[in-house]
Amino acid sequence: MKKIHIIGLGLLGGSFSLALKQAKPDIKFTGFDANPKNLEDAQILGIIDEAKEEPDADTDVIILATPANTLSGLLIKYLDQVGPNTLIIDFGSTKENLCKAVTEHPKRAQYLAGHPIAGTEYSGPKAAKADLLDKKVFIICEMELTDVHLKGMAYDILEALNMKLRFMDAEEHDRHLAFVSHLSHVSSFMLGKTVLDKMEDEKNIFDMAGSGFASTVRLAKSSPAMWAPIMEENKKNMLEALSLYISNLSKFRDKIIAEDFESLASEMQKINKIGDILDLGK
Amino acid sequence: MKKIHIIGLGLLGGSFSLALKQAKPDIKFTGFDANPKNLEDAQILGIIDEAKEEPDADTDVIILATPANTLSGLLIKYLDQVGPNTLIIDFGSTKENLCKAVTEHPKRAQYLAGHPIAGTEYSGPKAAKADLLDKKVFIICEMELTDVHLKGMAYDILEALNMKLRFMDAEEHDRHLAFVSHLSHVSSFMLGKTVLDKMEDEKNIFDMAGSGFASTVRLAKSSPAMWAPIMEENKKNMLEALSLYISNLSKFRDKIIAEDFESLASEMQKINKIGDILDLGK
Repeated sequence: MKKIHIIGLGLLGGSFSLALKQAKPDIKFTGFDANPKNLEDAQILGIIDEAKEEPDADTDVIILATPANTLSGLLIKYLDQVGPNTLIIDFGSTKENLCKAVTEHPKRAQYLAGHPIAGTEYSGPKAAKADLLDKKVFIICEMELTDVHLKGMAYDILEALNMKLRFMDAEEHDRHLAFVSHLSHVSSFMLGKTVLDKMEDEKNIFDMAGSGFASTVRLAKSSPAMWAPIMEENKKNMLEALSLYISNLSKFRDKIIAEDFESLASEMQKINKIGDILDLGK
Repeated sequence: MKKIHIIGLGLLGGSFSLALKQAKPDIKFTGFDANPKNLEDAQILGIIDEAKEEPDADTDVIILATPANTLSGLLIKYLDQVGPNTLIIDFGSTKENLCKAVTEHPKRAQYLAGHPIAGTEYSGPKAAKADLLDKKVFIICEMELTDVHLKGMAYDILEALNMKLRFMDAEEHDRHLAFVSHLSHVSSFMLGKTVLDKMEDEKNIFDMAGSGFASTVRLAKSSPAMWAPIMEENKKNMLEALSLYISNLSKFRDKIIAEDFESLASEMQKINKIGDILDLGK
């Protein structure tokens, strides 16, 4: 493995390169970002060794790390053009539409559908960190559809990055992620909006906000350029997750109206167990 | 100031004592907790020097740090019984009902309505930390109704604890806190519930949860014994905050249904500014 080309030099693409450069210093990184500022920053920060829009013919691995709704177009374009020894991996947060878009592609075996479970509320190459992916989960979907030899390069990379592999089908991935990731972002954005709307005529409200609010609203700083496309790509599951969330909130509100605080307390008690479950996952 | 009596030896009452003992080692702390295990732990941990249900007659300050719905009963009971040199301070998260309950009390001037903006998702004396209150905001309501000499003791204590004072009326306090604190807790609890409900037939879903989910759902570990009473005491404002939140979530869902992702992105962009506002507060 001598050359990797990264398309999308933001938080994920950048962190991937910074970490892999430490582990495998002999690999040459080329790459591109549609945003000229990001492309320049990525060169200054050493995320890529050379900026170029198209990968060289001898590129071993092409990484797609762009917003979710751009991935199928890019994936088809590069599958069409690559030689037989190049593997394409994407880092998208949604998988079902993307996998479906290339099911019948003659070079489907040269694609690995991936999703690193890592991120922060920040974006762009300057937010990239060499340790972002360390010990994090990397989900692979439809792994049986990827060529076994090309897949070897992916395993090499993921092992060098110290990532924990998980395998599942694309539909299951999107359904789960809607609940454990995408819904969190919407709940946080709408919490931020609710407070900001209120703040228009209420000055200094944030002076009273404690660490609990900061933690809950943190994801509302996330990039709309990344998250609006995720809503688009995961529409069906997002609607289910959001509807269940709204219904739970409405029932909670009804219990306050009915002054049924005993039932509220016993419900909260049951939800407390999420602490044990999350701690188990550490 | 020689003797302080704390009723409710949990996270807040305990942290208060641990910090003040460092700053003012000569003060003797007595205290009580209705939970025998908490009372025992508080003695072992050095939160109180002596356990007793009722404060000594020469107690300078009585701290009420019990759940919000117990405060007015305790406040009236102790106002009725204390001598003229004792100040009572409460640490409750809601203030309007409590202040109203003692407006006409002949010893109203011996009460200071306080709210330290500090906490974690954990509770009980074992969760107490000497630095929990350090540099945090302490809100005082209706400060003009407290006796000026007794108030001096409160200022002494709050200065020793390195806390930042803010003043507002009780109604304003409860309205603001509903948005910047209480709503966060409900959004987090219901996020936890939505995922737990889904998890019943979906194993290992948490394996896929990233740090974003952990941060957003953290408050769902909070104590129901503390939070159900806050919903009760702040009912009116919670209903307003929850209704606005549900309405924002529903509109977001409608935009996904309508596939109006451009409008979603521009909305998220506007909400991003909450990052700057929160960072300003640091």
